[in-house]
Amino acid sequence: MTELRQLSLNAFIYPSGHHEAAWRHPWSRPDRIYDVRYYQEIGRTAEAAKLDAVFFADGPALRTEVKHNAASGLEPITLLTAIATATTHLGLIATASTTYYEPYNLARLFSTLDHISGGRAGWNIVTTGTDLAAANFGLDSHPDHAERYARAREFVDAVVALWDSWEDDAIVLDRESGVYADTDKIHRIDFAGAYLKVRGPFNAPRTPQGRPVLVQAGASNEGRAFAGKYAEAIFTAHQRLEDAQAFYADIKAKAREFGRTPDQVKILPGISPFIADTEAGAKRLEREFNELTVPEYGLKQLEGLANTSLRHLDLDEPIPLELFSDAGDVTDNDRSRRQVVAGIVQRERPTVRGLLHRLAGARGHRVFAGTPEQVADTIEEWFRDGAADGFNVMPPYYPGGLEVFAESVVPILQRRGIFRTEYTGTTLRDHFGLTRPESGFAQQPALAR
Amino acid sequence: MTELRQLSLNAFIYPSGHHEAAWRHPWSRPDRIYDVRYYQEIGRTAEAAKLDAVFFADGPALRTEVKHNAASGLEPITLLTAIATATTHLGLIATASTTYYEPYNLARLFSTLDHISGGRAGWNIVTTGTDLAAANFGLDSHPDHAERYARAREFVDAVVALWDSWEDDAIVLDRESGVYADTDKIHRIDFAGAYLKVRGPFNAPRTPQGRPVLVQAGASNEGRAFAGKYAEAIFTAHQRLEDAQAFYADIKAKAREFGRTPDQVKILPGISPFIADTEAGAKRLEREFNELTVPEYGLKQLEGLANTSLRHLDLDEPIPLELFSDAGDVTDNDRSRRQVVAGIVQRERPTVRGLLHRLAGARGHRVFAGTPEQVADTIEEWFRDGAADGFNVMPPYYPGGLEVFAESVVPILQRRGIFRTEYTGTTLRDHFGLTRPESGFAQQPALAR
Repeated sequence: MTELRQLSLNAFIYPSGHHEAAWRHPWSRPDRIYDVRYYQEIGRTAEAAKLDAVFFADGPALRTEVKHNAASGLEPITLLTAIATATTHLGLIATASTTYYEPYNLARLFSTLDHISGGRAGWNIVTTGTDLAAANFGLDSHPDHAERYARAREFVDAVVALWDSWEDDAIVLDRESGVYADTDKIHRIDFAGAYLKVRGPFNAPRTPQGRPVLVQAGASNEGRAFAGKYAEAIFTAHQRLEDAQAFYADIKAKAREFGRTPDQVKILPGISPFIADTEAGAKRLEREFNELTVPEYGLKQLEGLANTSLRHLDLDEPIPLELFSDAGDVTDNDRSRRQVVAGIVQRERPTVRGLLHRLAGARGHRVFAGTPEQVADTIEEWFRDGAADGFNVMPPYYPGGLEVFAESVVPILQRRGIFRTEYTGTTLRDHFGLTRPESGFAQQPALAR
Repeated sequence: MTELRQLSLNAFIYPSGHHEAAWRHPWSRPDRIYDVRYYQEIGRTAEAAKLDAVFFADGPALRTEVKHNAASGLEPITLLTAIATATTHLGLIATASTTYYEPYNLARLFSTLDHISGGRAGWNIVTTGTDLAAANFGLDSHPDHAERYARAREFVDAVVALWDSWEDDAIVLDRESGVYADTDKIHRIDFAGAYLKVRGPFNAPRTPQGRPVLVQAGASNEGRAFAGKYAEAIFTAHQRLEDAQAFYADIKAKAREFGRTPDQVKILPGISPFIADTEAGAKRLEREFNELTVPEYGLKQLEGLANTSLRHLDLDEPIPLELFSDAGDVTDNDRSRRQVVAGIVQRERPTVRGLLHRLAGARGHRVFAGTPEQVADTIEEWFRDGAADGFNVMPPYYPGGLEVFAESVVPILQRRGIFRTEYTGTTLRDHFGLTRPESGFAQQPALAR
């Protein structure tokens, strides 16, 4: 029996898989991560399972850890375009930075993706957490957190105005009279902020979704306020139900503060499931992946979070509690990840190696090893208990990790009536249950145009 | 019999066709210009005819003439990605601006297109001719010609260095030892110019072509020097054989001055062919299109070139000679187009309407109305007589105008042995006969890295 409220499920694509050692495991295909058909096949798997969307992370800099990890670096909007042509319903969400792009250029890329895909584009708005990017864009240093968010607010306002600048009925296409567009329905946006000035109008019509879906992932105070105001979907990382519930309540409250309907903000925590026929088998699989990690790689990541060298530590001794006692101030880039790590250290008192293994799965996102029923249970629990509107599924390895989720977990959720068995719409907004926004310019009386 | 030297032929895609009134003609499909399948079908037509590439123009601003013309405004790299997935051999060339992009972002888009397409990407480098773009990027005015070219030189140097920054064998992918990449073969570029600073390294490996093909279209003195130094293919506009010959000789000489082999610079004039079984039929077809033009639209374009109002002119009186007597100085954006118009005015003494019709076909590019044999003859003449290495084919209307060229003209050129009957390679470099450049970093001795 289908219930009214339905789960949203995205497949978060990471070339060889979300586990940092996935590329070393025989089930992954690091040899195919520059082959577009590989991503198209993943997209088709996600669509066959009726998932809402696929999602790519991104950053405009080389991660220094490339020595031990297979990141692809391919530009995600281009990649999603290729997936768009291999699918018909699947949503397509790309991460892109407001700090290192120009609004007009980025608005065009997402608009084109939305046109090409028939209304399936989403933009995961980030301000870019790494200072490696700055030097690739002529900056001496990465702008600080507050400045990045101030620019981000202007950026999103400008991009939305550009997307809105052609009213939905601006194209007339009257061959007889020779009028293609009604230029009274195409507007300059005259955006002028402290960081950005954009005149417009945009150079393409409004897209099938009106606006691509706005997604956001920041968990700092400023990130949450930003999310409450703009985000239509939020990707978040929580290890425990109670933390997820608190975040969920906070964001829904913030959305209300901004005069928005809370169900127009979907909250989607990450979950990285190791799945096997038995719980013991799933945990064995997780261990198998953990044993492939390169400690040098994990330590480097952890040093970045701890802001100190950890080379002197014995891998098999407990991690010193004080290393993560300070969660950092609220404007800190890595605050949310550091909080997750601090929680693990305090609750579980792991060895250094144990902590590295805990983080190897999905960079601080929740790893869950169990049977298909157990994975479905935890998804349902979070969904019913005010912790999630759905999940960003982060398969530890690709492509098999998504396939096993699609074949074993999705049917259980469908039988329980909380996940669709067929798409009921064609756009990402349809899948997420989001309304199509009217153009901001359409609401102006004609004389004020 | 196949000759050694072969023509290159691109299809220059313009949504409804290159004739400005094409969208009003029943043979065009302006209703499909936001439908990705429309472009994929055009790509398949071009590939079935064994053309070298398809090509898109672009600019980051709305052309003010949208009232009377159906430009799509879709972002071309995204669009070419969609065409890439529908084809296997066809080259894919997109225009992008060095004035209004960041090198790291643009390098990623073209790199990804080259990866996705298996080595078929080309970048038509422009500095953007219109001052409409400036206001979309926070600038009070469009940078002047010299400044744009100075930035363009830095931009291309930085982008090429980024593409080169992973040596071809940087990926090790040794699952056993846990080493994915040899970081000694991944280089910072440390580019520091007057306009741009880019540290690198790039975040993706070298592409199938090593570097996407560099294409250029500027005909000013600075444009020509730029082309001589960087361009591997040049799109150019000439009405007459002798002008094309002079340009051809000049560019090949400039390439030599920069120490390059002249045959590594392909010169491809535009040609917009109206094709029919009889010459009279072809000319009738051209007239049919010309009669659909909206004079208000054409006059606006012409006013931009003449830098003066033309509304007072009688459409059926001769165009005043003095309007285009001054070709403008060498740093003028519109100089090459103004020269073309001045040539037409002086040689042909057209009426205002007659000039508007002459320019309606392909914005100053050569329009040729004739039988398939006649079109093939003029292509062969320019190719043999030192005026062209091939052509940028600009069908007056899409999709039919390309189909008739593919079905009627291409077979004649093939029978004459000057155009391939099968692809002999898989990359755009293969089609154009361009060598695959080695990475600039690979040529450094190991110690200097």
